[in-house]
Amino acid sequence: MEDDAVIFIGDKPVMNYVLAVMTQFNKPIASVILKARGRAISRAVDTAEITRNRFMPNLTVKNIIIGTESIPNEEGKMVNVSSMEIILTKQES
Amino acid sequence: MEDDAVIFIGDKPVMNYVLAVMTQFNKPIASVILKARGRAISRAVDTAEITRNRFMPNLTVKNIIIGTESIPNEEGKMVNVSSMEIILTKQES
Repeated sequence: MEDDAVIFIGDKPVMNYVLAVMTQFNKPIASVILKARGRAISRAVDTAEITRNRFMPNLTVKNIIIGTESIPNEEGKMVNVSSMEIILTKQES
Repeated sequence: MEDDAVIFIGDKPVMNYVLAVMTQFNKPIASVILKARGRAISRAVDTAEITRNRFMPNLTVKNIIIGTESIPNEEGKMVNVSSMEIILTKQES
């Protein structure tokens, strides 16, 4: 089994990320980690839920971790932003 | 100990919800559950993180659950929307 695959959720349409999750799970990997910050957090949850409901019923959420990251804004000032990781695994049927 | 308190995250400023969490934890309750749907999911994570980082260092995330709910849109048509629950507890110091 390969390591985990990481998918960074940005502001593309959610179906892009759903496709990315399914592509990764076509390889022999243990889990896929969705990483998102700020407003993309909602899209990360959408990605997990749409993938599970419509395409991969055997997909399970192994863990969800939230945190805070300090990143530079447009003016270079450091600001705090919320972050989330959703760890997805495939239940062997 | 009273039961859990539930706070529904909407589109008010995040500090409203931070204050609500702290108000609830001033009562003898076991945990506070933040419930959010759709885009408010990011604000729920902000609420948990700001409360923990700035006001309640002993706040811990006991569990995070994601799901999908079917709700009527403006035209009355049933649509799926992602949902999340963040269960917060206070670590006894």
